[in-house]
Amino acid sequence: MRIAVIGAGALGLFYGARLQKSGNDVHFLLRRDFEAIGSNGLTVYSVDGDFRLPKVNAYQTPEEMGKADLVLVGLKTFANHRYQELIGPVVGEETIILTMQNGLGNEEALAELFDARRILGGVAFLRSNRGVPGVVYHLGEGRLILGEYRQGETALAEQIAPIFQAAGLECRVVPDLKRARWEKLVWNIPFNGLCALLQRPVDALLNLDSTRDLILEIMREVISAGNAQCLMKDIPISFAEKLVSFSLGLGPYRPSMLIDRIEGRQLEIESIFHKPLQAAVRAGVRMPRVETVAALLEATENG
Amino acid sequence: MRIAVIGAGALGLFYGARLQKSGNDVHFLLRRDFEAIGSNGLTVYSVDGDFRLPKVNAYQTPEEMGKADLVLVGLKTFANHRYQELIGPVVGEETIILTMQNGLGNEEALAELFDARRILGGVAFLRSNRGVPGVVYHLGEGRLILGEYRQGETALAEQIAPIFQAAGLECRVVPDLKRARWEKLVWNIPFNGLCALLQRPVDALLNLDSTRDLILEIMREVISAGNAQCLMKDIPISFAEKLVSFSLGLGPYRPSMLIDRIEGRQLEIESIFHKPLQAAVRAGVRMPRVETVAALLEATENG
Repeated sequence: MRIAVIGAGALGLFYGARLQKSGNDVHFLLRRDFEAIGSNGLTVYSVDGDFRLPKVNAYQTPEEMGKADLVLVGLKTFANHRYQELIGPVVGEETIILTMQNGLGNEEALAELFDARRILGGVAFLRSNRGVPGVVYHLGEGRLILGEYRQGETALAEQIAPIFQAAGLECRVVPDLKRARWEKLVWNIPFNGLCALLQRPVDALLNLDSTRDLILEIMREVISAGNAQCLMKDIPISFAEKLVSFSLGLGPYRPSMLIDRIEGRQLEIESIFHKPLQAAVRAGVRMPRVETVAALLEATENG
Repeated sequence: MRIAVIGAGALGLFYGARLQKSGNDVHFLLRRDFEAIGSNGLTVYSVDGDFRLPKVNAYQTPEEMGKADLVLVGLKTFANHRYQELIGPVVGEETIILTMQNGLGNEEALAELFDARRILGGVAFLRSNRGVPGVVYHLGEGRLILGEYRQGETALAEQIAPIFQAAGLECRVVPDLKRARWEKLVWNIPFNGLCALLQRPVDALLNLDSTRDLILEIMREVISAGNAQCLMKDIPISFAEKLVSFSLGLGPYRPSMLIDRIEGRQLEIESIFHKPLQAAVRAGVRMPRVETVAALLEATENG
């Protein structure tokens, strides 16, 4: 399968590399890593076993890449206004677009530009970071939940899942992508927000009573707001406790928004905070603690 | 009148100096400023006119001070566990205790140790900072609202108010100290909390949409919680907008909690956040945004 990776950060590089390793024809749109990967290939240090791809199809513009059967979108969401410019050139009549980006609103924005029936969303449970140019660290997990933009549909996702499974990755198809997105937000909103705000890793926040309690309260707000979104099945409120227990095992993990902050990048406040807050308000639900964290994060971005 | 000032920070030094200037017999318990004031006296640079008190009664222990007719308590509230040790020695049968400290719980804690009928609270609207030892800056206001620990009583407060008025200070007696405390919290909770958390002055937070909206929402939470405390008269919800308009005139003012943070002192989280939160919960009200700010402040104090 001819695959284009648009947005090759830690996530895009990792999944693209695994898909190439298992025999797909993968093409990467690169910026920071273009020269390093062009001369030395792509190295993945992974909990599943290290490997190196000596020859990688690397591009600096999407126009050179040609049409793809599948586009993996790994862009930071604050670059979503560039969808047409970056993704348009690799999309043909039959191209499937799979966004693996954070938060809400990505499938919707793609559906405004491309064929809504060919848009998939992937919720990635992956711990990975970039190293020096040409190097990716895969620290844990890697499993993927796939769903279609159109609630209840699964045929196209069922067609794509085996490609990831053949690359040794756990990949499950669900009929309700929206529910999977909100479940992910139950983790992403408190941990990305509080870790970025306080500039501390996951375990530091779980080890303090005040922030652990706050994390649980925020999770419950997100679950309640999610359950007001016409999901096919409610997220149980006990999911919060379950996620906190799971997170205790993550140790000093730094969520992506903390890494963005450390590296001086813009934060994904729009897709991880504002879109969910807007969806909640639309459904008549408030998330006051989430609003507070969002306002504080915004303040740290301004001035 | 023989007055003891216990806790001579910017507030205690300012009010004590004005009371001495207008003819009272004032005695200061000092720590940081003891030597400077002993040798050079106390200098007040004030919007009401600068002045210097060349001779000041300065002490390092309360035992040397003798009994007072009136005790002004200006301690940081995290020192309240030392009330007996610091205030006990200057309190006789007839002594009136006036706490001008921040937040909630101060009168209550004093009433557990001393005669509840002789405890007053003063809500100070004062902008002042300490300079080098022996120097206080009075940047604005100075007015005082006086009330008694016992709701509805005013006789004793009416006795004390003229002493402040004679010192040229606006001083108003109210029958409901609790209401005055909650009104002050409507300002103190958002501005102390957010300025300390984000390390920015008042105008920086009012100039950003996200934080200005958050300030208003927090104010409304505090008003609702205050109105659940059996006040003699409700605080109108429109008080929030009024306070924000007023605060626009404060410019780059740094609330006390921001100064505490900058100077590496402990924050008054207990009296400004936890006591009000506990009072709200007792009355069946939640303040989710206030809870969030409190948890974040606590985290910044730990680790």
